[in-house]
Amino acid sequence: MQIEAGALLKNILYPSDLRKLKESDLEQVCKELRQFIIDVVSVNGGHFAASLGVVELTVALHYALNTPYDQVVFDVGHQAYGHKILTGRRDKFHTNRIFGGISGFPRRSESEYDAFGVGHSSTSISAALGMAVASAYKGETDRQHVAVIGDGAMTGGMAFEALNHAGIEKSNLLVILNDNCMSIDPNVGALKEYLTSITTSKSYNKFRDELIAVLAKISKNGPDAYGWAKKIEQSIKGTLLKNANLFESLNFRYFGPVDGHDVTKLVKTLNDLKYINGPKLLHVVTVKGKGYALAEKDQTKWHAPGMFDKITGEIKKTVYDKPQPPKYQDVFGHTLVELAEQNEKIMGVTPAMPTGSSMNIMMKAMPNRAFDVGIAEQHAVTFSAGLATQGLVPFCNIYSTFMQRAYDQVIHDVALQNLHVVFCLDRAGLVGADGPTHHGAYDIAYMRCVPNLTVAAPMNEEELRNLMYTAQLENKGPFVIRYPRGNGVMPDWKRPFKEIPIGKGRKLVDGEEVAILTIGHIGNEAAKAIVELNTEGIYPAHYDLRFVKPLDEELLHEVFGKFNKIITVEDGALPGGFGSAILEFMSDHNYKAEVVRLGIPDEIIEHGEQEELWRLCGYDFSSIIKVCQKLCKGQPTSAQVG
Amino acid sequence: MQIEAGALLKNILYPSDLRKLKESDLEQVCKELRQFIIDVVSVNGGHFAASLGVVELTVALHYALNTPYDQVVFDVGHQAYGHKILTGRRDKFHTNRIFGGISGFPRRSESEYDAFGVGHSSTSISAALGMAVASAYKGETDRQHVAVIGDGAMTGGMAFEALNHAGIEKSNLLVILNDNCMSIDPNVGALKEYLTSITTSKSYNKFRDELIAVLAKISKNGPDAYGWAKKIEQSIKGTLLKNANLFESLNFRYFGPVDGHDVTKLVKTLNDLKYINGPKLLHVVTVKGKGYALAEKDQTKWHAPGMFDKITGEIKKTVYDKPQPPKYQDVFGHTLVELAEQNEKIMGVTPAMPTGSSMNIMMKAMPNRAFDVGIAEQHAVTFSAGLATQGLVPFCNIYSTFMQRAYDQVIHDVALQNLHVVFCLDRAGLVGADGPTHHGAYDIAYMRCVPNLTVAAPMNEEELRNLMYTAQLENKGPFVIRYPRGNGVMPDWKRPFKEIPIGKGRKLVDGEEVAILTIGHIGNEAAKAIVELNTEGIYPAHYDLRFVKPLDEELLHEVFGKFNKIITVEDGALPGGFGSAILEFMSDHNYKAEVVRLGIPDEIIEHGEQEELWRLCGYDFSSIIKVCQKLCKGQPTSAQVG
Repeated sequence: MQIEAGALLKNILYPSDLRKLKESDLEQVCKELRQFIIDVVSVNGGHFAASLGVVELTVALHYALNTPYDQVVFDVGHQAYGHKILTGRRDKFHTNRIFGGISGFPRRSESEYDAFGVGHSSTSISAALGMAVASAYKGETDRQHVAVIGDGAMTGGMAFEALNHAGIEKSNLLVILNDNCMSIDPNVGALKEYLTSITTSKSYNKFRDELIAVLAKISKNGPDAYGWAKKIEQSIKGTLLKNANLFESLNFRYFGPVDGHDVTKLVKTLNDLKYINGPKLLHVVTVKGKGYALAEKDQTKWHAPGMFDKITGEIKKTVYDKPQPPKYQDVFGHTLVELAEQNEKIMGVTPAMPTGSSMNIMMKAMPNRAFDVGIAEQHAVTFSAGLATQGLVPFCNIYSTFMQRAYDQVIHDVALQNLHVVFCLDRAGLVGADGPTHHGAYDIAYMRCVPNLTVAAPMNEEELRNLMYTAQLENKGPFVIRYPRGNGVMPDWKRPFKEIPIGKGRKLVDGEEVAILTIGHIGNEAAKAIVELNTEGIYPAHYDLRFVKPLDEELLHEVFGKFNKIITVEDGALPGGFGSAILEFMSDHNYKAEVVRLGIPDEIIEHGEQEELWRLCGYDFSSIIKVCQKLCKGQPTSAQVG
Repeated sequence: MQIEAGALLKNILYPSDLRKLKESDLEQVCKELRQFIIDVVSVNGGHFAASLGVVELTVALHYALNTPYDQVVFDVGHQAYGHKILTGRRDKFHTNRIFGGISGFPRRSESEYDAFGVGHSSTSISAALGMAVASAYKGETDRQHVAVIGDGAMTGGMAFEALNHAGIEKSNLLVILNDNCMSIDPNVGALKEYLTSITTSKSYNKFRDELIAVLAKISKNGPDAYGWAKKIEQSIKGTLLKNANLFESLNFRYFGPVDGHDVTKLVKTLNDLKYINGPKLLHVVTVKGKGYALAEKDQTKWHAPGMFDKITGEIKKTVYDKPQPPKYQDVFGHTLVELAEQNEKIMGVTPAMPTGSSMNIMMKAMPNRAFDVGIAEQHAVTFSAGLATQGLVPFCNIYSTFMQRAYDQVIHDVALQNLHVVFCLDRAGLVGADGPTHHGAYDIAYMRCVPNLTVAAPMNEEELRNLMYTAQLENKGPFVIRYPRGNGVMPDWKRPFKEIPIGKGRKLVDGEEVAILTIGHIGNEAAKAIVELNTEGIYPAHYDLRFVKPLDEELLHEVFGKFNKIITVEDGALPGGFGSAILEFMSDHNYKAEVVRLGIPDEIIEHGEQEELWRLCGYDFSSIIKVCQKLCKGQPTSAQVG
């Protein structure tokens, strides 16, 4: 649905149009831009509060800088809606996050104004520094390079790595620290406290001014006092003041804090900063959700609220006439507390995803046993390893796509030492609207090759509970449980715990001619397919392997002993994935079946509804039906569908 | 060879023996410990300068603390030789890094004094914090937890993530910053400059003391001056001083800098710090290589010098009577400069491995085009991505095992955006004496599943040169080249460049009955095997695939069309690896050959000579011979050898 823009915004297709306006018009532009975001997101859903918070900053950046020649990298990109609307995509903005529409994140392939594709946190300083160093090398001395990074993203280690490097490069880099005290949940950690102390106490600059005034006053009281004052001043300037700010310690010139909702002041500041070379940091204080009262009040809820009534603030929810299956994440959250009540060794760890992972349930119930460690996946894993060395059993919950950030720590700190850490990989498989940056496509392949790991995936809520129960039992070593975004299949999910023997799959349906081997939730698509196939007189067997590693060899000998047509189905990348593990078993035991592997093909998968994407990739129930039909008619199949 | 220890050291088997000595004996213990390290390492090789630098700190830690109840985590572990010698392993120390001997790094399975296994950088604060939080949870309030981390390792992002989290935990954690201005090469970055400024200017504490004295003096000058002084003091204490130090900004109490070679002072300081709760950081200044003059002078050379004459300092090198093949890393280093001279777009990036990767050759030849970004693999990759967005062609050289640290950045920042970054993965495959933490075992599996990547491995020096030449040509997208630690096979390696078509393998030897498919340098083992097999009348064909991704499908159709017995050989993990890719091809095209996959089995591989480990894992030339013989006799083979 197209939404009409305000009178000024209507005429802004590109930043060049914005730059034709008078500075005094900018406040009105901000108002209209904010309204436009509210109008569209309330109808279409999407990320909300972050973009509202940086309306003024976004307008100021495109007004003061010569984009796209000047380059702005938005960290994460949740906050880039205003940027998209001002850079040629206003008319497409209602297609945001919809299959075939524009991406919810900045993307180089979408616009030359998107200097760098983002989605994961803390990458912007590295990328912008690369651009700045390239410009310096090419002699483009007039070019500006800006990284816009939140205080949450600043806790990610690679942001610090980039600051450390940028501090010794002479290139023209401006880091804008968008300080709103929030990740998706409230930001945590010492850095947040530090930034708050700068902002809420007398400001750093104000203090500096005052100190100088006091010193001047002392000086007036005669030569003696003057001497002391000088000495203090020199000492302070020489050592203390130079290093008095965390960012100045890292050779950045620090400016701020400034009010991030004063667009005129921001424009002036950005213009001034153009003439200061070398690494510099501008500390901008904003309010996440600014201008929408409810969002300002509950910023986590309004991070990505879905569709809502913009007047009443009522968030639209489908009403069902019977109980619905829960989200997997909530099964995780509630089950963890249940287990922790029985087993005092259990601890919870999340890197800045209390709400997204439902770890917040344990954080609320047992605040001394559940930790939000900030946007810090690497630390989350090794911190968990440290807990495990002391005989505790940490459940470390990290989205599959973010676990890529802590891959080395899984190998080096957990697997190599065979420590009993339970990794729960939420959002495994294709995640839907968040798209390629967030698909949890690779975890089966990248986990399966690591020794000592157990890698499992539940087909439903009960299985998730039982895998979690099993994983926390004595001496289980490192244990990975992957499950998808979204809902399960069992409204009545809270059943008594049962231990699942490690590496034990299960036969769900006996059959003939063809066997379907599935792993995880996607097995439900196979089950659906089988029901329909039965009506056509085709009776495939269905095995839920449960474990990618170790494989249930006994069950597989049964399968390969009986069937010479096999279909494997996984919600994961095909190269090196679950199907590949089955091929390895087949080869190692000299079976010679025909195997069709269904899963994510070796390409970038766009955003869209999950079911839509499964179909696109050829492993939804309808695709499974077609492959079964072909196999049973003896027709050639193409393994790599999609 | 057993080396005799000095009079005091001889009687120290465990720290409890050390703690029986008088404090006045500790200097002598340090002297003997240092001598023992020099005596053993000069004969056996190993890491050298790092351990010499922390002799006093190591003695002080075990003297002041109640290890192993109190827990000390050494970051990286190069510096832990003294620790090993004092904790029950003096008599085994001569087996350090030798097959079957003790590990060159701390390992939990080796000793209860090794609180956490290490090898990769920057993990210690996370791990020690986990331990400290566990102790707090268990009510072990008297327990000390110490992370000993170098200023180089402190540049790794996860160290910062851990500081950020530790700063808000009340648990008892002491971080000892071992500041010697070195990684393996000199440390770089803004943090290093900051630490130097603290250390070389008036020390921070000294300044604080002086300031207070001056303020007191002012105060004596009557009520007016007293008022001002108070005001200054309050302001300074309230805002400035609290945050005047980078670590205090993160809620750590900062102590130091102290002389890391004054063992008595260190013991006193460590004892004092026991009684200060919460997160604290002790800044210790040491000299890498301390006590061995040559090592103090050239710390990079003496990081791990091999065997040497401890009197003359002459490093022992085998003398050959004819030219030897070069190290792969040097082929990389020289070739990169050669290419960069022809192609001005080429840039070089290394995360703190200039010497190890031979990137130092380009850094010397073209200092404005080659960057050491610190121990910061994540940043190195995304910084390279930033360079690539500007049309430059970065060669980002990271050891295979360390690339695990930047896996997300490869996927999210490079592959997803299809950016032209060339990744050179040195030390791919089994690395030898460094052992399990450093084996580059998993890269084929974890890279192969990522869309848009080209993944190649050269069988020899000429191939490496040609792959590098090919990789830098226009629009090649992300390009991975993996090659092993150690020497190649071509003394006469510097040949004219030839482009290799992407995904094109080569047939090396035609044959009958069985085909051997290899990837990378390990293909030379197959070649050796074939020469011997020919003498027995067995004539296997040999194909060097060159590319794991994309596979040479034309060549593979030829292979599977002609052979039904196939051996795949790779210096990489079997699950999801090169052999697995071949199985996928076979399955997708309905071939039914018998395939034996040789490579690293699904287990942790210990340290030892590379050839020794290849044999152990069943893919050296002698193993290949045996598998061929069996296949040709039609005997059953076990695919997963080892």
